[in-house]
Amino acid sequence: MDQIRVGVIGTGYWGPNLLRNLHYLPDSEVVAVADKRDERLDHVRSLYSCLETTNDYRDFFDMGIQAVVIATPPATHYKIAMDCLQHGLHTFVEKPLTLDSAQGQEMVEYAESHGLVLMVGHTFEYNPAVRKVKELIDSGEIGDILYIDAVRVNLGLFQRDLDVLWDLAPHDLSILHYLIGQDPISIKADGGANIFEGKTDVAYMHLEFPGNILAHVHVSWLDPSKVRKITIVGSKKMLIYDDLENLEKIKIYDKGVEKLPYTDSFGDFQCSYRYGDVTAPYIHFTEPLRIECQHFVDCIKNGDRPLSDGRSGLRIVRLLEAAERSLACHGERQMYESAPLSSVAEQAAK
Amino acid sequence: MDQIRVGVIGTGYWGPNLLRNLHYLPDSEVVAVADKRDERLDHVRSLYSCLETTNDYRDFFDMGIQAVVIATPPATHYKIAMDCLQHGLHTFVEKPLTLDSAQGQEMVEYAESHGLVLMVGHTFEYNPAVRKVKELIDSGEIGDILYIDAVRVNLGLFQRDLDVLWDLAPHDLSILHYLIGQDPISIKADGGANIFEGKTDVAYMHLEFPGNILAHVHVSWLDPSKVRKITIVGSKKMLIYDDLENLEKIKIYDKGVEKLPYTDSFGDFQCSYRYGDVTAPYIHFTEPLRIECQHFVDCIKNGDRPLSDGRSGLRIVRLLEAAERSLACHGERQMYESAPLSSVAEQAAK
Amino acid sequence: MDQIRVGVIGTGYWGPNLLRNLHYLPDSEVVAVADKRDERLDHVRSLYSCLETTNDYRDFFDMGIQAVVIATPPATHYKIAMDCLQHGLHTFVEKPLTLDSAQGQEMVEYAESHGLVLMVGHTFEYNPAVRKVKELIDSGEIGDILYIDAVRVNLGLFQRDLDVLWDLAPHDLSILHYLIGQDPISIKADGGANIFEGKTDVAYMHLEFPGNILAHVHVSWLDPSKVRKITIVGSKKMLIYDDLENLEKIKIYDKGVEKLPYTDSFGDFQCSYRYGDVTAPYIHFTEPLRIECQHFVDCIKNGDRPLSDGRSGLRIVRLLEAAERSLACHGERQMYESAPLSSVAEQAAK
Amino acid sequence: MDQIRVGVIGTGYWGPNLLRNLHYLPDSEVVAVADKRDERLDHVRSLYSCLETTNDYRDFFDMGIQAVVIATPPATHYKIAMDCLQHGLHTFVEKPLTLDSAQGQEMVEYAESHGLVLMVGHTFEYNPAVRKVKELIDSGEIGDILYIDAVRVNLGLFQRDLDVLWDLAPHDLSILHYLIGQDPISIKADGGANIFEGKTDVAYMHLEFPGNILAHVHVSWLDPSKVRKITIVGSKKMLIYDDLENLEKIKIYDKGVEKLPYTDSFGDFQCSYRYGDVTAPYIHFTEPLRIECQHFVDCIKNGDRPLSDGRSGLRIVRLLEAAERSLACHGERQMYESAPLSSVAEQAAK
Repeated sequence: MDQIRVGVIGTGYWGPNLLRNLHYLPDSEVVAVADKRDERLDHVRSLYSCLETTNDYRDFFDMGIQAVVIATPPATHYKIAMDCLQHGLHTFVEKPLTLDSAQGQEMVEYAESHGLVLMVGHTFEYNPAVRKVKELIDSGEIGDILYIDAVRVNLGLFQRDLDVLWDLAPHDLSILHYLIGQDPISIKADGGANIFEGKTDVAYMHLEFPGNILAHVHVSWLDPSKVRKITIVGSKKMLIYDDLENLEKIKIYDKGVEKLPYTDSFGDFQCSYRYGDVTAPYIHFTEPLRIECQHFVDCIKNGDRPLSDGRSGLRIVRLLEAAERSLACHGERQMYESAPLSSVAEQAAK
Repeated sequence: MDQIRVGVIGTGYWGPNLLRNLHYLPDSEVVAVADKRDERLDHVRSLYSCLETTNDYRDFFDMGIQAVVIATPPATHYKIAMDCLQHGLHTFVEKPLTLDSAQGQEMVEYAESHGLVLMVGHTFEYNPAVRKVKELIDSGEIGDILYIDAVRVNLGLFQRDLDVLWDLAPHDLSILHYLIGQDPISIKADGGANIFEGKTDVAYMHLEFPGNILAHVHVSWLDPSKVRKITIVGSKKMLIYDDLENLEKIKIYDKGVEKLPYTDSFGDFQCSYRYGDVTAPYIHFTEPLRIECQHFVDCIKNGDRPLSDGRSGLRIVRLLEAAERSLACHGERQMYESAPLSSVAEQAAK
Repeated sequence: MDQIRVGVIGTGYWGPNLLRNLHYLPDSEVVAVADKRDERLDHVRSLYSCLETTNDYRDFFDMGIQAVVIATPPATHYKIAMDCLQHGLHTFVEKPLTLDSAQGQEMVEYAESHGLVLMVGHTFEYNPAVRKVKELIDSGEIGDILYIDAVRVNLGLFQRDLDVLWDLAPHDLSILHYLIGQDPISIKADGGANIFEGKTDVAYMHLEFPGNILAHVHVSWLDPSKVRKITIVGSKKMLIYDDLENLEKIKIYDKGVEKLPYTDSFGDFQCSYRYGDVTAPYIHFTEPLRIECQHFVDCIKNGDRPLSDGRSGLRIVRLLEAAERSLACHGERQMYESAPLSSVAEQAAK
Repeated sequence: MDQIRVGVIGTGYWGPNLLRNLHYLPDSEVVAVADKRDERLDHVRSLYSCLETTNDYRDFFDMGIQAVVIATPPATHYKIAMDCLQHGLHTFVEKPLTLDSAQGQEMVEYAESHGLVLMVGHTFEYNPAVRKVKELIDSGEIGDILYIDAVRVNLGLFQRDLDVLWDLAPHDLSILHYLIGQDPISIKADGGANIFEGKTDVAYMHLEFPGNILAHVHVSWLDPSKVRKITIVGSKKMLIYDDLENLEKIKIYDKGVEKLPYTDSFGDFQCSYRYGDVTAPYIHFTEPLRIECQHFVDCIKNGDRPLSDGRSGLRIVRLLEAAERSLACHGERQMYESAPLSSVAEQAAK
């Protein structure tokens, strides 16, 4: 089969990285790039002189393009993505899929009922380190997951149409779902808007998952040090994934506490501690974005559902909406419910 | 004035440290030590052969002792401390003051109305690094406190009559009150009991303080790495106090985000980032316990109220009780109310 | 003045970085690229489709090119650079300038006597962090330099025509000269060839500079951890430059030992220690290569001598030759003598 | 057999630690302590009221003491130790054994020919982490040792009768001998006396061992950061022992370079790199001094030769003398020769 003809929409902060990777992939050919800003298009042409460029992505519809990659501001995702889907294009949308779950559901249903690939850019699901963590969990080496603590903070760029929840949390929420493999039962969020009224810049989320698994996520745009760390406490071992470490990104601690069988007449509890080796498994690192772009192209070619498909993107949007509701009422617990997708889509999704 | 004659009750994990420090202080003389366990008393005698030892602290009452230091299991604090107070002894109790605020209130009222010193071992209020942080805040160098994030985790000893909340959180809660200088408005707690049914071993607390200051505390007995870190984000600068650092315990980051006055017709927000030097102020370190013990002796000699007096101990107990209530109902927000101390005590407290 | 028309020779490991930077500079235009390997040229064309490419750099001589950048294997530097100089081209050569000082001297003399710019790629002299260190030294804040300790180790790529001395040491030797501002008096080198007979893969160098300044350099291709650290001990303060640190690349320690005036009758020495703050100055980081390429272009336009000119490159070559002689006789001390440049060159150099 | 009756001479910086450990050992009884300074003896009595104290260690000779532990200034070791040996006492001397190898030899010969235990305080040979490293080497896991790099630096106390070589290097030199198990062939030293004329405060040593093993030791009293690190590069794996790490003191890197047999017609070398897991083996840590003191007592009881016997102490003294000679002539290489011990001693040593 020939190369997939791709168009890239939006070349601001993230778009150029998607463009670069799609440009290199043997299976895809970036045919054109769209951005409202001429200076961005000039920049793109200086790098890839053979590319078509336009201020209006709708020009793509006459270019024999099969797929689009959308890296525009989140508020515009829905309109642009629906337009592309309705023109029969397979569509990749950067995270968050959209800022409104109703819109997200419409996108998912349309794509599924029309046999189009809809994928969202949950990059970390394509990160070799995260995949190694998943592997360690699935192998049973960690034992049952007791709880997961995630921290993603630094002095961060304040986004115009996002707050820290919508900007940073999608990463951790998608990682949590990827690792645990189930939808959460409930979510709570507390936080503060310290710099701009109503714009949350620090937040703490607390999630409950089936099997009594707890997860806590701390995101902040207002922290002196940059931290990207996930701690997983299992019944057998403990693990820390530090994304800022160059070589020892994952450390497995052969540590734990074991409950001893009931012993004395007073029913006192007894436990034993295990302190063992610490191991940092070697990870062969490849750029996650490369793997992600390849996956998008493969799904189009083979008619597969992406790992981070529209439903996955929708899940995160609904979780963030629940978190916002919680934030609005002093962190009151919100139950999570998955989107009521129409049976048509259900069928198609099979 | 002569040396204060002190008796030490309980020589398990912490008692020996108090004993050692009181032994060295020129202003105090440790006259006797009490512990139910003979082997502990043997050990103490092997170190301090001139000490009287007994299995029953009540023997102290005939030894012309003026003050006692109680480092027994928390569940026994109330009974022993009240007994000592009623025998007219100035009393130091390890944290937590007690496990029941009603008992704590009784202790405070008795001590205050009888002019006895009642002090609780909130060690960190006597830690030179914490005091340096306090100094930096009070000097205005950090600006207004926006939020404080505290983490105190490691693979910790499971206590028999405490959970992780009562074991570790008193440190952070007393530090927060010391630094902010006000009572919190509300507290919430989420957590899990992963090893023993009903015994919380990981907890996340969220507090609101006057002036819209948020604080978050994460404590755990089930973490692979040991962390003792407090991050303070101020309106001018940011600060990290890492108690495990030997030399650079405090780092001040001249970093921040400033809201610009100008906002354009679309009501866009504007902000500027400040990235500056990082400074680790030199701290002349003295053993906090030494300072704490000296303070206890000084208060007795000068009739002063200790920095960490009974009321301070009671405040933490009431906060922990509120946290427990919250924990019992999915982290529901609990308002904090200070103890309704009788006017008698109030008078005395003047 | 128009853009400088540049040709790039060699697009292996380092060439593409020079190409990228020269491509972006408004003052220069990369006209053509030469490499013997077609696959490399294909790769370059895929990135910069408008570029001329050739297997033979001599084609440049008919392209109206004014300057060349040579990033070929060191053994070929001399032949190619002389050829370009003789065709009147300003020449930039990657470090080391050459593997033989006689050749280096010839290059310098030719360039200087013909008014051509000859520059060598001592990148660290254009590194904002190194420049900050220089600034701190020149400001007197550190006091007199007592000694400098440099470590540059990791599990490194074994080069075909270089050993670790010629591969890594040029960085540290050029940094030392840049910071101290004088030629060394002597150099010694010890080391080992652990993997390939006669190919040094770990080396320790010891240099003496005027003013009784000592410097020690440790380079290795066989170390488990990557280290890029320079410690400068001054009479007033101490400083560590850690190139692998993202934010706190430079730490200034207000620490020192001071000799007290002679005091007692026994003439015992007395000293006092100073322990003070640690400060990490904020460094506005720009890609050193960008600054370096801009400097090359500026020197051509303004007829200036580059900071890292041919003489600078020659100095390092002569130092490495002396180090090799020392290595050959158990680290015997070798005096350093600067190259006896012909008066013609001297004149021109004025 | 009864407890060994021990006397401790010198209670300055290190003596109290030896005293504390010998005090706790069930197999030894500290009978008396000697120090010229009354205030030190007062301090000791405040801790161990049952001890005899004296200003003159010779009083020990009438106290039925069997062994002495000498922690006085090194310059006094010889005189005191010989006196004790001549009074038939088993003798433990802090490192360095003495400052003059002729004296050291006399001590060794006397002790060996009179069947007395003479032990020197090379503490690291009793350090569980160092022993773990030894175990890893002996097991063959690391492969052949290629080279060892040791760094022991910080802003250190200037000793009155020692320079940094005699103060810090004995640790690394004894560790090197312990790990490699052979005498070095040669030693070289370079360094500087930056604060006091003639008192070396920074030094670099380079040693050659049989089997083409190189070792480099960097010691300094003038460094901003405290470092205690030993890197061992083996033919199979690499290892770092960082004594300042609390939990991961030893890290084993499954990394290496392998020479491939195949070399093509041009005689090019070929190698492959191995990057694998990093493992930090769990070490059950016990105070090295406790193990060391127990060993001294055991050797007396069982008539064994201590691991760090007089010969071991003498070896280090001779190495340091050679290093000093090298330092005096610009780091000229000095061959190492072991002490020519008299046959009598040799016999006894059997």
